[in-house]
Amino acid sequence: MGLSLNMARGKPCKEQLDLSMPMMDVLNSSADLNCEDGIDCRNYGVLGGIEECKRLLGEMIEVPAKNILIFGNSSIAVMYDRIANSYMHGVLGSTPWCKLDEVKWLCPVPGYDRHFSITESFGIKMINIPLHEDGPDMDLIEEYIKDESVKGIWCVPKYSNPTGVTYSDEVVRRFARLKPAAKDFRIYWDNAYSVHHLYEDKQDYLLEIISECEKAGNPDLVYKFFSASKITFPGSAVAGIACSEANIKEIKKQMSVMTIGYDKVNELRHVRFFKDLEGIKAHMKKHADILRPKFEMVEKIFEEELTGLASWTTPRGGYFIALEVPGIAKQVITRCKQAGVTLTDAGAPYPYHNDPLNSTIRIAPSYPSIEDLELAARILCLAIKIELALQN
Amino acid sequence: MGLSLNMARGKPCKEQLDLSMPMMDVLNSSADLNCEDGIDCRNYGVLGGIEECKRLLGEMIEVPAKNILIFGNSSIAVMYDRIANSYMHGVLGSTPWCKLDEVKWLCPVPGYDRHFSITESFGIKMINIPLHEDGPDMDLIEEYIKDESVKGIWCVPKYSNPTGVTYSDEVVRRFARLKPAAKDFRIYWDNAYSVHHLYEDKQDYLLEIISECEKAGNPDLVYKFFSASKITFPGSAVAGIACSEANIKEIKKQMSVMTIGYDKVNELRHVRFFKDLEGIKAHMKKHADILRPKFEMVEKIFEEELTGLASWTTPRGGYFIALEVPGIAKQVITRCKQAGVTLTDAGAPYPYHNDPLNSTIRIAPSYPSIEDLELAARILCLAIKIELALQN
Repeated sequence: MGLSLNMARGKPCKEQLDLSMPMMDVLNSSADLNCEDGIDCRNYGVLGGIEECKRLLGEMIEVPAKNILIFGNSSIAVMYDRIANSYMHGVLGSTPWCKLDEVKWLCPVPGYDRHFSITESFGIKMINIPLHEDGPDMDLIEEYIKDESVKGIWCVPKYSNPTGVTYSDEVVRRFARLKPAAKDFRIYWDNAYSVHHLYEDKQDYLLEIISECEKAGNPDLVYKFFSASKITFPGSAVAGIACSEANIKEIKKQMSVMTIGYDKVNELRHVRFFKDLEGIKAHMKKHADILRPKFEMVEKIFEEELTGLASWTTPRGGYFIALEVPGIAKQVITRCKQAGVTLTDAGAPYPYHNDPLNSTIRIAPSYPSIEDLELAARILCLAIKIELALQN
Repeated sequence: MGLSLNMARGKPCKEQLDLSMPMMDVLNSSADLNCEDGIDCRNYGVLGGIEECKRLLGEMIEVPAKNILIFGNSSIAVMYDRIANSYMHGVLGSTPWCKLDEVKWLCPVPGYDRHFSITESFGIKMINIPLHEDGPDMDLIEEYIKDESVKGIWCVPKYSNPTGVTYSDEVVRRFARLKPAAKDFRIYWDNAYSVHHLYEDKQDYLLEIISECEKAGNPDLVYKFFSASKITFPGSAVAGIACSEANIKEIKKQMSVMTIGYDKVNELRHVRFFKDLEGIKAHMKKHADILRPKFEMVEKIFEEELTGLASWTTPRGGYFIALEVPGIAKQVITRCKQAGVTLTDAGAPYPYHNDPLNSTIRIAPSYPSIEDLELAARILCLAIKIELALQN
């Protein structure tokens, strides 16, 4: 059929990008480019973000502006930077990881491939932690962190990539109460989908981790990451980190050597466009209206074709559906590719690309048109049925 | 007099920023945000810059697009990243610097404080190299690079910060022919002021280093950095690196882990605004018209007041004048501060803030108004005369 359908990446579609085009008009040549405290956003100065941008994105992720640093355009870059600085310079006075014989990391699976690529690039030993319906296996985490060489954990706590799971209150509280042997252990809390709901009436709620850590007497335990890439324009938006004041102070000091600062004009553009949190919420409803039918289409087809043959998640937000086909994921993905349907690489949701059960297929329904998506989902189901038949 | 005059940083003034305001209109809500090869700049994808942006900035720095990577908004961040990656992961297969007992670095002085802050933050041992009228002392450099622990050198080869010196053809060729003992030695060629002339009829010409390195059989020897911060908006422009294909390949591979990419919309905005190299040149003439009278004002006052008492440079471009007052720089800067005139910190143009002759004062004439500048320069001259009198 000469098809070329792509369900591989969590990439917004054109209609979603069009939603933010009015943002291109808010800072025109006659606009005042001073921010609220009178600083000219067009010039050097201000490390870590203009106040109104920290406040707006802080409200979005339920953290005060004083605990926020704006950090360029990519939250992956912020996470990489945290690991790089810990590796080179240490964390609040601890030994830099490059001076240690071994560093280990906990990885709830299935998870996000770009997280795993970062830790892998530093030779950090990654350990799989099963991800349940209410979050990762906390018993196992509490056991592993007794090892001082375990320095961190990757988490996508809300509408998780790729299962769509949101961590329960009890899981968040257990995270906040962790007492790792390593003083430089940090929870890497990638809050990528905080306002990325699919339904207005069915939303997941996530307990705010930084205040929970404070309550538990562990204020420095967590780095919380956020990004507006899937709110406005992927790669041309604003990303950052939220954490305790001690962490902020250290990061800001490192930042002062690392860069002359980030793009304040773009920060201002985002603030002027959204105005306030209500503006962001209204905007996200429009995204949901585009995404929801796509998710529902895939789920409907799976129900029609795969009931009893496979299992899949039905998330209330985020960008992914996780489909489980134990023993045949790789074969199904290859077969789909031959038919012109590109899926995320087999094994990608696991450290070292090693899916121990050869089971997980990550479905990203956002980018294709609904017609292409229907066709792609049907082909995927057919590929699964063929592989199941071949197995028997 | 209750003054607050600032000649400390190389910061464009408001009138210079206003020159780029029309750029805010080129990508409005009805603009086509696809780049020339059809990629939607609003979405994920494309590492290292869109083609037309690499081509335009490549032309500006006389390097083909294939040797260019666009890298966010700050060239300091690109330089930091190169050192960080060398420290963490090595250079084209060499031992990562974090595994070595000692790393040394050559620093032509006076030089740029933010360069020195980066190397200092990694505990790299910095060695002063005298900067002459035609560039750094090449005899000394050729001697030092016989030491395998010497891994790099900071250079601002054109309209140098802070002396305004441009390296001669012979110096550039000697750089290109260097045979360092360390295979991972790199020349950090911060081409910050390539098109930042003050005069149309009196311009410095700098030999292109990458092609010279190729001719000399040393293609991988240099990283050349560039930025449009002092062309459009500081911190909201486009920066990057130019180097050999082997270096590009390595950097791009690291980039694929470090970030989801940089702000392509802003790259496109810059290209659409300037259109071509002629557009950049015409724009830079307008900057020169604002800056030139400020430099000339300072030089005129120095001539009137300091002839026979001090020496200073008269650059044809860039952002700085270096004033030499052996033995009293620190005292003069303190005295000026008391009078409300802020200058760059004493010692800043030297590694470890240690000016061995207590001599160099970096003057940044760009930011103040011409009236404020005149007053500040007079106060500076007065402070020098007082200190000289106190000495005798």
